[in-house]
Amino acid sequence: MAYFPEVKRIQYEGRKSTNPLAFKHYNPSEVVLGKTMEEHLRFAVSYWHTFTLSGSDPFGLPNMIRPWDGYSGLDLAKKRVEAAFEFFEKMGVNYFCFHDRDIAPEGDTLRETNKNLDVIVSMIREYMKSSGKKLLWNTQNMFSNPRFAHGAGTSPEADVFAYAAAQVKKGLEVALELGAENYVFWGGREGYETLLNTDMKLELDNQARLFHMACDYADEIGFKGQFLIEPKPKEPTKHQYDFDAASAIAFLKTYDLDKRFKLNLEANHATLAGHTFEHELYVSRIHGMLGSVDANQGDPLLGWDTDEFPTDMYSATLAMYQILKNGGLHSGGLNFDAKVRRASMTPIDLFYGHVVGMDTFARGLKVAAKLVEDKVFDQFIEERYKSYQSGIGQDIVSGKATLKSLEDYIIDKPVTVTTSGRQELLLAKLNQYLLEVE
Amino acid sequence: MAYFPEVKRIQYEGRKSTNPLAFKHYNPSEVVLGKTMEEHLRFAVSYWHTFTLSGSDPFGLPNMIRPWDGYSGLDLAKKRVEAAFEFFEKMGVNYFCFHDRDIAPEGDTLRETNKNLDVIVSMIREYMKSSGKKLLWNTQNMFSNPRFAHGAGTSPEADVFAYAAAQVKKGLEVALELGAENYVFWGGREGYETLLNTDMKLELDNQARLFHMACDYADEIGFKGQFLIEPKPKEPTKHQYDFDAASAIAFLKTYDLDKRFKLNLEANHATLAGHTFEHELYVSRIHGMLGSVDANQGDPLLGWDTDEFPTDMYSATLAMYQILKNGGLHSGGLNFDAKVRRASMTPIDLFYGHVVGMDTFARGLKVAAKLVEDKVFDQFIEERYKSYQSGIGQDIVSGKATLKSLEDYIIDKPVTVTTSGRQELLLAKLNQYLLEVE
Amino acid sequence: MAYFPEVKRIQYEGRKSTNPLAFKHYNPSEVVLGKTMEEHLRFAVSYWHTFTLSGSDPFGLPNMIRPWDGYSGLDLAKKRVEAAFEFFEKMGVNYFCFHDRDIAPEGDTLRETNKNLDVIVSMIREYMKSSGKKLLWNTQNMFSNPRFAHGAGTSPEADVFAYAAAQVKKGLEVALELGAENYVFWGGREGYETLLNTDMKLELDNQARLFHMACDYADEIGFKGQFLIEPKPKEPTKHQYDFDAASAIAFLKTYDLDKRFKLNLEANHATLAGHTFEHELYVSRIHGMLGSVDANQGDPLLGWDTDEFPTDMYSATLAMYQILKNGGLHSGGLNFDAKVRRASMTPIDLFYGHVVGMDTFARGLKVAAKLVEDKVFDQFIEERYKSYQSGIGQDIVSGKATLKSLEDYIIDKPVTVTTSGRQELLLAKLNQYLLEVE
Amino acid sequence: MAYFPEVKRIQYEGRKSTNPLAFKHYNPSEVVLGKTMEEHLRFAVSYWHTFTLSGSDPFGLPNMIRPWDGYSGLDLAKKRVEAAFEFFEKMGVNYFCFHDRDIAPEGDTLRETNKNLDVIVSMIREYMKSSGKKLLWNTQNMFSNPRFAHGAGTSPEADVFAYAAAQVKKGLEVALELGAENYVFWGGREGYETLLNTDMKLELDNQARLFHMACDYADEIGFKGQFLIEPKPKEPTKHQYDFDAASAIAFLKTYDLDKRFKLNLEANHATLAGHTFEHELYVSRIHGMLGSVDANQGDPLLGWDTDEFPTDMYSATLAMYQILKNGGLHSGGLNFDAKVRRASMTPIDLFYGHVVGMDTFARGLKVAAKLVEDKVFDQFIEERYKSYQSGIGQDIVSGKATLKSLEDYIIDKPVTVTTSGRQELLLAKLNQYLLEVE
Repeated sequence: MAYFPEVKRIQYEGRKSTNPLAFKHYNPSEVVLGKTMEEHLRFAVSYWHTFTLSGSDPFGLPNMIRPWDGYSGLDLAKKRVEAAFEFFEKMGVNYFCFHDRDIAPEGDTLRETNKNLDVIVSMIREYMKSSGKKLLWNTQNMFSNPRFAHGAGTSPEADVFAYAAAQVKKGLEVALELGAENYVFWGGREGYETLLNTDMKLELDNQARLFHMACDYADEIGFKGQFLIEPKPKEPTKHQYDFDAASAIAFLKTYDLDKRFKLNLEANHATLAGHTFEHELYVSRIHGMLGSVDANQGDPLLGWDTDEFPTDMYSATLAMYQILKNGGLHSGGLNFDAKVRRASMTPIDLFYGHVVGMDTFARGLKVAAKLVEDKVFDQFIEERYKSYQSGIGQDIVSGKATLKSLEDYIIDKPVTVTTSGRQELLLAKLNQYLLEVE
Repeated sequence: MAYFPEVKRIQYEGRKSTNPLAFKHYNPSEVVLGKTMEEHLRFAVSYWHTFTLSGSDPFGLPNMIRPWDGYSGLDLAKKRVEAAFEFFEKMGVNYFCFHDRDIAPEGDTLRETNKNLDVIVSMIREYMKSSGKKLLWNTQNMFSNPRFAHGAGTSPEADVFAYAAAQVKKGLEVALELGAENYVFWGGREGYETLLNTDMKLELDNQARLFHMACDYADEIGFKGQFLIEPKPKEPTKHQYDFDAASAIAFLKTYDLDKRFKLNLEANHATLAGHTFEHELYVSRIHGMLGSVDANQGDPLLGWDTDEFPTDMYSATLAMYQILKNGGLHSGGLNFDAKVRRASMTPIDLFYGHVVGMDTFARGLKVAAKLVEDKVFDQFIEERYKSYQSGIGQDIVSGKATLKSLEDYIIDKPVTVTTSGRQELLLAKLNQYLLEVE
Repeated sequence: MAYFPEVKRIQYEGRKSTNPLAFKHYNPSEVVLGKTMEEHLRFAVSYWHTFTLSGSDPFGLPNMIRPWDGYSGLDLAKKRVEAAFEFFEKMGVNYFCFHDRDIAPEGDTLRETNKNLDVIVSMIREYMKSSGKKLLWNTQNMFSNPRFAHGAGTSPEADVFAYAAAQVKKGLEVALELGAENYVFWGGREGYETLLNTDMKLELDNQARLFHMACDYADEIGFKGQFLIEPKPKEPTKHQYDFDAASAIAFLKTYDLDKRFKLNLEANHATLAGHTFEHELYVSRIHGMLGSVDANQGDPLLGWDTDEFPTDMYSATLAMYQILKNGGLHSGGLNFDAKVRRASMTPIDLFYGHVVGMDTFARGLKVAAKLVEDKVFDQFIEERYKSYQSGIGQDIVSGKATLKSLEDYIIDKPVTVTTSGRQELLLAKLNQYLLEVE
Repeated sequence: MAYFPEVKRIQYEGRKSTNPLAFKHYNPSEVVLGKTMEEHLRFAVSYWHTFTLSGSDPFGLPNMIRPWDGYSGLDLAKKRVEAAFEFFEKMGVNYFCFHDRDIAPEGDTLRETNKNLDVIVSMIREYMKSSGKKLLWNTQNMFSNPRFAHGAGTSPEADVFAYAAAQVKKGLEVALELGAENYVFWGGREGYETLLNTDMKLELDNQARLFHMACDYADEIGFKGQFLIEPKPKEPTKHQYDFDAASAIAFLKTYDLDKRFKLNLEANHATLAGHTFEHELYVSRIHGMLGSVDANQGDPLLGWDTDEFPTDMYSATLAMYQILKNGGLHSGGLNFDAKVRRASMTPIDLFYGHVVGMDTFARGLKVAAKLVEDKVFDQFIEERYKSYQSGIGQDIVSGKATLKSLEDYIIDKPVTVTTSGRQELLLAKLNQYLLEVE
């Protein structure tokens, strides 16, 4: 039985194809800069947006039409697993990601909840084995349940912290069992609604304590996956502590966690924080912190997380450019933390969304690879900063210069700057590559 | 001769006074929590906004009417010094702050520029001696001159870096000579316009190199003032590296500068970065980084630095609350990095602006002090987090707990959260204190 | 039986009261500018936020603890009516507002839904009779049900338009039956997600057709209440057609509806559109369109509708100032379209929220009234524009002047502007009034 | 003598050209949908950004390097005219636009100023005759001079109004003399800084009076060009009355000016107001108000008017789509209200900026034309709204339906919506067209 009988395995048909259920750019086995597109673009399906999304929003009731409608509890959970692996197969996506509560329902106690989880994890393990699909990362949902109204690792109530800790423990065990390549922390409620009732220092200390416990337990059980923090500035909280890459880096360094953690960067979270996606990737990269990516996009005119499928080829190109400069994402990947619009309520829209997302990033990869190969920006930058490769510039970067030596050098020398940054020209080149790369 | 003949020394006349040139709340000798208001509120006048502001904006020509109109060069610079000390005296403000280029004009070379600077610095030193006024901090303007179009410490051109370094050297010498209590770095052009032409890693490395050189030179000449970084997210650049407190902390920790630097936080820069002012102060405080404050306010509906005089008593109260929690600002102070609106073009508006700014912060101090004294929020917070003072909570904060011990504790225990955060009630209390504190 | 047994009738106890369940400013019978506070401040409770709010948000499940938990269907609806009237009584609020779907559950067809509605409307009518409470306005929920995913009056599907029309018909009948003083249209889904699939012209035409039908039907059945449009720029849609007051005015004038409709302005909607609340009220007022108010507040750093209880006394003062200048709200009122924070999940927080909201507006009224009475701003404004009362200025406003006559007048006359706008001084006065008004 | 000796006439060389001073897409004589690209794309150079821009910003001094550096007064003005016509010729742009003060310096009185203006206007007229270049529109600068600090047509001082009126009179005479095809009003200071000192009603009335006088004078002298209002939400003012297209439409309808005025829409002004460019064009179009376009782009993460050269092919495509749907811009055109970045300070950057801007819009035109031709979106939309072409839908649009007839039709009919809006699919199609159109 098929959940999506109207859809066959999506194939690459090339740029001119008029088939909406075919790839125009994503050709898995095509080699780009020495690796196949499939190796570069470790796409992952988000379980939550694709298999549990209801379509509800702050002003609307659930409206999504899904082949598993009518089921509930563990039965529903099982139907979704079956549908998920059919979906992975048809989309040709090799990875997936989930929160613990996406895949199995909660029970009255954590023991019961874990029991439910075990049932589905076993089922998923079997499906993974037979299908070859892999778990990019899993994480724990410590934000939906009412008990997390004031936070999880940063809750003012110790029992909630304990509950969160136990949930992380189970999450790591699941990660080990399913061979997750990473383990993610997104602190949806780890922040504050008002400073008037908040002990920020204790909350941050506790958050760090939880992360240290997680590292210790991972070592104990032999989980080798990469730990990742996912920054987001706000929503649902007024302020989330991991506001952006820089905030997360400050936190990790303050609490001596910077050797164990990298970052999972999301495009829409970047824009909510006032940054471009490529900025967040760049900052993370030069700090050795670029771990993985949530591939989506926001609407720059809207102030909430719209989690749209990525369609902007500029953004995808500049993101892939940073990823190539990072030597790839290593254990990370490109997770579609993206949902179809509420008005796209039919099952086939899930395919349209993934097709455009994958094609957008495939196009981004190809354009970025050519920009790298042709040193379009690199050559300009090398020339622009070349004064640091000799003379006074070399003295500066080598640590030989002092304020005094630099004053001696410059005190009588008029300094004018007449070299253009050429932004207009570089943007024209970007446009040309975007259109012309084969 | 008086520059502001229409204004006498501004005096405290109490809350009911209808004199627009009197303080309603700022009573310098009044004792609040064991210190005088004057000791708490180390107000400083910004030389740039008060003595060099022309009123020009991106769409408008200079329009300010000033008693020094008609002068130029060093003559103008001297007139401004005379006017400044008259202003400090009449306002009853004890501190001031300046950029090197605010106080003296540039020459053709740095040597000539420094000579101009020396003339005015000598003059200021004499005025300081006779008036008792003090320099809260000085800094260098490395953003206005065309040579800084691509940055100063982060310029792609080594000569510009050298020029900036020499400017910092002179700045530190001036700081030493005038007894500055702090030395500030605001990196107005230390960021980027487009990533396409930017080597962010080299730029950040160089920025750190400049700061290390400054520390070394301060040690060499015996300057003991506190170094401060002033974060701002953007404007004039598209992105400034010191985006907010967290970004600056990440930078300082990455480059081993966190022991030498603290932060100078500005209200309007906070809001441009998507934070409240009190957030930035709180974050800095718990990292031991709260150094000084630029007391102004922005317009939350405008996306640029409006640098308005602070008039919002909520913001001033919550800022002073953080400052009191910090045990005061120590060597720092409250610098009015604030300008009268372009439409407030007469000299007397400078007084109106400072009066409302000082009164707003004086009111904020009194309200905050009473909130602290009555433990209005502290008591609520203590109660809210009390579960960490015994039992499982104590195990967590003491480092005794592990994921395993916490799972054992919680695995069969339903956890519900029924304790309200009471935001509405706490805001009502804030309103009551704001109105009722005597 | 009481739903809120822990709360007694909230009384006015004066500014110094430490009772969190007492009014500090709202003294219903106190006379301000010739009317009682109760007459000025026609407060209304929002049925949806106070009686149906679950606490769910885009990342969280329902968490509110309510005395009617455990009931469902019509039983739940009845419990809520009972609780509501107890709440109105205890709060001392005379008005309430609701959407059709707040008060009664939907059935399988509109006929069944209307039957449910009739049951509850009858019950409410009885409660209104015995309590003296009144309906400020009702409206129809044409945004939550999945059928409105693409809009209601602007739906691309004619059946949905028909459904919406029938819902409006019933809404008007309910309004008539319960004596509603106004009837509101908020078009939560009347806008677009993407222009790529949208016929904006047809959608606006249809929206206007629905409004004309509503006017005709109101005339037919004799409903005399004021029609109101409530602008909001976005959320849940990417763009809502009634973006702000000006957009709504343009629409009403374009479709010849400006004689029948006024506006219901919400503070948080104003800020989401990039305006202050007082701006929206002012614009509406001078167009004769200020009908009613949704009294809440947003967070200027958050990009979604937070619908907080109003606590900002500045905003409340400036809003009440516009309302006084309008000669009051006439058939309108101050509806608390405001919800307690998700972390304020206990029933008593509903009272805290309303107490601070009512006190904030009561304080705003008193301060605004004194500002009006003392002509604090009026006198300044009269002086500022006085050149239009004689000479060339009078020629301009009387229509006598032409470009030519004005050129003749000015061609040789240098024009300089040296009169300050005195923004800093006026803000200082506002602060003084805010604190000092008795 | 040549001002830009390093640049030859820019030619079309096709998509693969690596010449940065050649067009890749803009081929003036190429026919698209029955008109040449030159006819579709009535490009205009902005005199202010290209010939008077200094490079100053709120934190920086002038830094642009220009071939007319060193001149002043009328000499400078003449050099700029010569350079301008060389630039128009080399760029192959047929139109230009200016403010009165861009082209000639002010004198001490308006009479003297007008004399200066006459000198340059005569010179320009001669250059226009010999070159065939045309004036798309002119306008008056009523925002830079200090006399406009409180507004021009909305100034509280009648003399300023008179001055503004006389300036408009002269502007219309210049328009007539030079054959301007449109006449623009951008009200940079027509708004407010604070409502506390503002009589909004009088200001709007006066603004309308000025516009009526302008219409009367145009009729008197026989100027037939199209009047245009250019909306902008803010900057330099806190609030500009012509906030966006809808606000301007409301104003024009309120003051009975909607028959004489259309709108000049700018991309960056749209985004500052919270709208996409295509939204503003669409709104204007369906109100018969789409007059002309300021072709630039903003940075969605920055809150001020960056006036960047348009490089975003998505935005240009969707803008050209609206323009094609409008049957073109008629007397309007595409004015590059765009400036090179401050860091692009060399003369040749002016060419790079215009090349990328023209190519971006040329590409946009071609893609949009194919989308129109293939009815990519039209067909989807036609299908989506087809229920209004028969049955109950036809009754609705024909005005036959009433609330009652619609209730009868729908009362027992369950209405579910299962037709997707297909946003993801439509965006994929847009991407495909963007890349694949030849």
